[in-house]
Amino acid sequence: MPRYAFLIEYDGQPFAGWQRQADQPSVQGAIERALARLEPDVPSIAAAGRTDAGVHATGQVAHADMARDWEPFRLSEALNYHLKPEPVAITACVQVDPDWHARFSANERRYLFRIVSRRAPLVHDRGKAWLVKGALDVDAMREGAAHLIGKHDFTTFRASICQAKSPVKTLDEIGITAEDTPGGTEIRLTFRARSFLHNQVRSLVGTLERVGHGAWAPNDVAEALAARDRAACGPVAPPDGLYLTGVGYNPPVFD
Amino acid sequence: MPRYAFLIEYDGQPFAGWQRQADQPSVQGAIERALARLEPDVPSIAAAGRTDAGVHATGQVAHADMARDWEPFRLSEALNYHLKPEPVAITACVQVDPDWHARFSANERRYLFRIVSRRAPLVHDRGKAWLVKGALDVDAMREGAAHLIGKHDFTTFRASICQAKSPVKTLDEIGITAEDTPGGTEIRLTFRARSFLHNQVRSLVGTLERVGHGAWAPNDVAEALAARDRAACGPVAPPDGLYLTGVGYNPPVFD
Repeated sequence: MPRYAFLIEYDGQPFAGWQRQADQPSVQGAIERALARLEPDVPSIAAAGRTDAGVHATGQVAHADMARDWEPFRLSEALNYHLKPEPVAITACVQVDPDWHARFSANERRYLFRIVSRRAPLVHDRGKAWLVKGALDVDAMREGAAHLIGKHDFTTFRASICQAKSPVKTLDEIGITAEDTPGGTEIRLTFRARSFLHNQVRSLVGTLERVGHGAWAPNDVAEALAARDRAACGPVAPPDGLYLTGVGYNPPVFD
Repeated sequence: MPRYAFLIEYDGQPFAGWQRQADQPSVQGAIERALARLEPDVPSIAAAGRTDAGVHATGQVAHADMARDWEPFRLSEALNYHLKPEPVAITACVQVDPDWHARFSANERRYLFRIVSRRAPLVHDRGKAWLVKGALDVDAMREGAAHLIGKHDFTTFRASICQAKSPVKTLDEIGITAEDTPGGTEIRLTFRARSFLHNQVRSLVGTLERVGHGAWAPNDVAEALAARDRAACGPVAPPDGLYLTGVGYNPPVFD
């Protein structure tokens, strides 16, 4: 059976998350339903990252084994046709080796978290960014973030339901940029690592927001990390601002 | 009566346009309804640009005369409170002179038009950009746009219902940038002029898209302009991609 890799974009707002659930809408369920319109035996699909309810993607990756030989572009077009009107789209599709796996072959995940700091309610970014009413000190946030780079025990920034075997992860990069927008500032935080713990990005963002706000000193981030205690974490940021933007493979799968 | 200027952001999708209408939702109607919650005599408001159905704004400007003296920030907060859940927000508010007028004092309007060129349906930008399925030649679009800069009779690019006294306008700038996005390219066209004719930006964008697509040569834009004939215009672009991003005043009103 030929295996296909899909590059996937979705708006997380109407979904209870990536993972298929019996009684709630999921991204995986939407894609599998579209696949079922193409072949009688519904192939189950595996994703690089199982995003939570309300979390978005511009670069999720999943694979499926099909019974028929499909021309990859035609497969993506047929899927997009059957995915309507769900806010899910296949933006690229390639055939891969049968031993290639969207999750286990991945060697990097990239996330973006968007914070909009302003007084007025969100309009164009409603459900697509975290609205923070006070001004944020971006330099302090960068100083706090510097403590998190590298290999650490991230127990503090891990959901209690996290199923990873080890809390030790290597965080390769946190980038923080700020740009003026109408009535305020948009702060974009980008994260890059081989893999992340459950809720790790939202836990880190919620903590760095406290630093930007001035409630925490930058060095408090180092102390929270060293505590290896979930109770030392700042508030967890809402899912609205989080986007899975890319998954890395060696060799690259999509050009 | 003190006069206040408002900087306004809105998502045009649920509205029949800026202008108040008896039986359809409008942005003006939403703001006037919020104002009516603050003072018994509903002041009518005047905007710098009356956007059409489905057209968005990040920098619309309007003014209103209030009976009471309001602290501007408190006025914007009160309006935003009463505007919920409409996708309309006041992002700034200042008191202005009683002879200042949002429309007649303006000496510049700025628009953005977003085209997304890709095969897959739009997800995050649904209703917020024009989806064009083929690739666009951005250099050819720039070459075509160059013919439009300056003072011209824009009859070709003017809606038949346009009420402007003269079709002669001076277009100060068209900027065109392209950026890779998942599965395609986003092309952003920015327009700057003292004022625009009705449907002028969408008429220009629809024509430049034909050039990018290769159906028109860049020089065909010069010929269409010289024809001074609505029939010579390319197809009018949909409202989805259009944003009123700013209005200029001398001296500036919002900093």
